[in-house]
Amino acid sequence: MRFDVTILGSSSATPIFNRNPSAQVLNINERLFLIDCGEGTQQQLLKNGIKAQRINHIFISHLHGDHYLGLVGLLSSLHLYGRIRAMEIFGPPELKEILDIQFKYSQTNLRYPIEFHATQTDRPALIYENPDIRVESFPLEHRIPCTGFRFSEKNRLPKIIREKVEELNIPIDVIPLIKKGADYTDERGIVYNASDLTFAADAPKSYAYCSDTICNWKYIDQIRGVDTLYHEATFMNDMADRAAETFHTTTIQAAEVAKLAGVKQLLLGHFSARYRELEPLQEEARTVFPNSRLALEGQIFVI
Amino acid sequence: MRFDVTILGSSSATPIFNRNPSAQVLNINERLFLIDCGEGTQQQLLKNGIKAQRINHIFISHLHGDHYLGLVGLLSSLHLYGRIRAMEIFGPPELKEILDIQFKYSQTNLRYPIEFHATQTDRPALIYENPDIRVESFPLEHRIPCTGFRFSEKNRLPKIIREKVEELNIPIDVIPLIKKGADYTDERGIVYNASDLTFAADAPKSYAYCSDTICNWKYIDQIRGVDTLYHEATFMNDMADRAAETFHTTTIQAAEVAKLAGVKQLLLGHFSARYRELEPLQEEARTVFPNSRLALEGQIFVI
Repeated sequence: MRFDVTILGSSSATPIFNRNPSAQVLNINERLFLIDCGEGTQQQLLKNGIKAQRINHIFISHLHGDHYLGLVGLLSSLHLYGRIRAMEIFGPPELKEILDIQFKYSQTNLRYPIEFHATQTDRPALIYENPDIRVESFPLEHRIPCTGFRFSEKNRLPKIIREKVEELNIPIDVIPLIKKGADYTDERGIVYNASDLTFAADAPKSYAYCSDTICNWKYIDQIRGVDTLYHEATFMNDMADRAAETFHTTTIQAAEVAKLAGVKQLLLGHFSARYRELEPLQEEARTVFPNSRLALEGQIFVI
Repeated sequence: MRFDVTILGSSSATPIFNRNPSAQVLNINERLFLIDCGEGTQQQLLKNGIKAQRINHIFISHLHGDHYLGLVGLLSSLHLYGRIRAMEIFGPPELKEILDIQFKYSQTNLRYPIEFHATQTDRPALIYENPDIRVESFPLEHRIPCTGFRFSEKNRLPKIIREKVEELNIPIDVIPLIKKGADYTDERGIVYNASDLTFAADAPKSYAYCSDTICNWKYIDQIRGVDTLYHEATFMNDMADRAAETFHTTTIQAAEVAKLAGVKQLLLGHFSARYRELEPLQEEARTVFPNSRLALEGQIFVI
């Protein structure tokens, strides 16, 4: 099952050095989930060859412009491109008001429905579920209400052993039942145990997104053990005071969070405009958590 | 006196083929005026080496997203870059509400004041004046209220004849008075007529911006005789019905407007996403008005 994330923006509030504000597309089993939608996201989708029409779920962490200002443009373009399928949007309750007023004054009657789900910014919540995954939001601590998101695959069904299918001539429509644990009885009445016909699938994958937040450790339980953690790292360690003042995180703090939460891979982003070169941020994070990587525009990380 | 326009966006509602939504910067005597501010304008300013901090006046034609969605991002970045000087914004009255609600929910208290001037969308109006220029807005006819803008230099003062200054030893502080028509009396009491010491300056320049509108001829008087006219040309002539339905203009209509208004140069823009190649639009316009040009990203047109 495909599970990867494409980075569309790596900058913090003021875009510079060809960096774009926050936006990422998570592809889970060919379903696309957009996380944050900074200004220019629709152009970034085009540039990265991602069809915006394939996105059916958008998650907005908070209402600072660099995390949502591309949303009205994206939704308007989807309307003009003839979309009719509903778009589910998850974000702070006030986002609805911001969308409504802009569609009202532009006299845009979207051809497709928006299903708006207000996020809880004071406690963790299960906000979305489909047969493959579960998405939970959890509070971060920023200057305004803000949530992180965790995308977790459900336990995968065991896989069928191909050779057994051929050997026993198992009909194709029975295979899903066997995967779910049903025994198989062949034409002669011989019973085969499901566990003898299958092998365990890969462990379910998970991805967590934390931007923007002061490093308060309170959200560690929500991100514990994820395969890949995206965490903002706006500043380097020598700017720790500035990070605290502005409710942001440093490279070292992000790496400590990754270590403490026992994740496998750390993606760093939301870089301050003060850094033209980003390698030093990666190097600094790696002193604490070696598998730290810069999440730069256009990169795809397999989870 | 410098008078030119830099194009930041040439696309209509759905940005594609690396084209950006509407935005232009007019430089008149080193004062920068931003006209429309589609999504990504702050990035386009950076890309074109234009310091956003130098902009003190922004003019928004109407509230379709492709003409204003970059405004909150731009204003927020100016705040983060430490701006304290006021920003004057001219646009439809509802724009104020759209800005206010977004600054409210992002808890952004701008360090600089915004002086908002609501445009009249039902009649022409003088909306701004400084010692060099006058700016008028005038109604266009689009699906929602929309105005065009005309930037007109005031009559320039005559220029002093350098040789006379040297010959008669005219003190430097007297020159501005002579330019304004005062006669000059030298040390011996000889009177020289101002008109003998000066020559006429270049004719004042003017620029008009028309986007978006159906071609209804009602605004011809407002743009008559401008040196350069920017006019939307969303569609080619074979799409005239579609243009009328969507309250847009074709290449041929834009060229006819330019001809009828007696302008010197026509800039075409706001191109539909259906056109990958734009040369045919220019060629078509030139069959009616030869001095028609495509107004593409990054180009600077001297007026």
